[in-house]
Amino acid sequence: MYIGIDVGGTSIKLASFKTLYLPKAVKVIELKTQNNYENDFDNLAKAISELAKSKVSGIGVGIAAVLDEDKTQILKANNIKSWEKQALKNDLENLFKCKIVLENDATCAALGEAKFGYGQGKDFIFIIWGTGIGGTCVRLINNQVYTVPCELGHQIVQWQGIFDNCGQHGCLEAYCGGNGIARLYGKSAKNLSENEWREVEQRFAHGLLNVLTINPVNLVIFAGSVALNQKKKLENIEVIVRHKLKIFQAPQFLISKYQNDIGLYGAIALLSR
Amino acid sequence: MYIGIDVGGTSIKLASFKTLYLPKAVKVIELKTQNNYENDFDNLAKAISELAKSKVSGIGVGIAAVLDEDKTQILKANNIKSWEKQALKNDLENLFKCKIVLENDATCAALGEAKFGYGQGKDFIFIIWGTGIGGTCVRLINNQVYTVPCELGHQIVQWQGIFDNCGQHGCLEAYCGGNGIARLYGKSAKNLSENEWREVEQRFAHGLLNVLTINPVNLVIFAGSVALNQKKKLENIEVIVRHKLKIFQAPQFLISKYQNDIGLYGAIALLSR
Repeated sequence: MYIGIDVGGTSIKLASFKTLYLPKAVKVIELKTQNNYENDFDNLAKAISELAKSKVSGIGVGIAAVLDEDKTQILKANNIKSWEKQALKNDLENLFKCKIVLENDATCAALGEAKFGYGQGKDFIFIIWGTGIGGTCVRLINNQVYTVPCELGHQIVQWQGIFDNCGQHGCLEAYCGGNGIARLYGKSAKNLSENEWREVEQRFAHGLLNVLTINPVNLVIFAGSVALNQKKKLENIEVIVRHKLKIFQAPQFLISKYQNDIGLYGAIALLSR
Repeated sequence: MYIGIDVGGTSIKLASFKTLYLPKAVKVIELKTQNNYENDFDNLAKAISELAKSKVSGIGVGIAAVLDEDKTQILKANNIKSWEKQALKNDLENLFKCKIVLENDATCAALGEAKFGYGQGKDFIFIIWGTGIGGTCVRLINNQVYTVPCELGHQIVQWQGIFDNCGQHGCLEAYCGGNGIARLYGKSAKNLSENEWREVEQRFAHGLLNVLTINPVNLVIFAGSVALNQKKKLENIEVIVRHKLKIFQAPQFLISKYQNDIGLYGAIALLSR
């Protein structure tokens, strides 16, 4: 029995898997993140015990945080501040006495797509378009999956544009991220008018075009709440990119195979990396 | 005796090297590109024979062209059209009966920097800022140098901006490449006023910032005529990037170790790859 965990600012999801190969989530549990590390960890530990009917052989964790180089400590976690500086790996090890692997959530989801999703055997860019906009570039080198963060949300689409929470001005995320849309238009992505969506589509296409020229790939895979809930808009964006990109052929656009659960599959992929 | 060749739209440079390791160009010859393949090849062959006092053991060629997958044929060469579809590798092999390796010139120069220049043992982005703006991302994976083209010159810095020769609108190259500057300001880079340079610096910094967020590295190495002739301007650009980039630490900026000759060192690097 293996456990995959996806720790985000809003919820903590976990699932049990019987195998590391061709996995299928047996049961998924979703907890509300309280942003109080002790409480969150207690709830998580209880949920793991509930899922794990047999012995736990390994736990993989994708977490919305910057980890130290050894992937044992949480250095920075903007949306779950109380988790910063916590020794999550040790705490899980002490309790469950099994292999524990931590990874940044975006990298983790990309690895899930590379191992079990539509990215198998391919180079691709994995983009999470949700509250923020992040990504990972996945390259297959000698049959090994190699990842580099792609912070496309913090590219500048408007020089000296609107302020972004990261401290820069004119970031793609400030115009097209879920939080950015809410701030800019005073409503959530799903409530934008068609005209407002046209603006967001143009900006997002602009950002994608820059990704594809700076870091060329033949496949882009999307996840994240905005991408998953606005598939028609993503199709419109694809049309703009196909029309505007002239120096390369536009790549294939896909929605993540496991959609909202891709982080859980990524967490399981961590255990056999 | 090894020969390194750098074929560009304006000139063809070649040099002889006694060794593939710690190489030092013995003699450099520069020919004017006539853009007539038969004439150019004849001149090149004569110059190789002139350089090669002893037996030629290998010839490496960096060329301003898109090559086929096998790196034997020239598919596309915008600035030396008459070289397109020519079997350069075969032609050299027939004449010199030795190992011939062809590579795209930007990739070739980046390999030279990775093997003999300031990029040794490092991940870096190699940027050629000359007539156009191109680049290569170099990653060191398991001690192997791995390159991906980085077409930063064709990122969009101004959505629906001025037309670029590539067919897109608002490309960085259209504002900051040598040809772009000449078209936009009606004079060459070296004749721009200080105010005009401030504009170019801002644009170029914008483009670099996007490169660094989309494809993070700790080192950027510059070559190309504009970069080499405008070192003070490059310093100004570095200041802007350091000031504006907030999500990562700004990388180190360096000028290529072998500057104008880096393509020749890259050509020699091809022979021991």
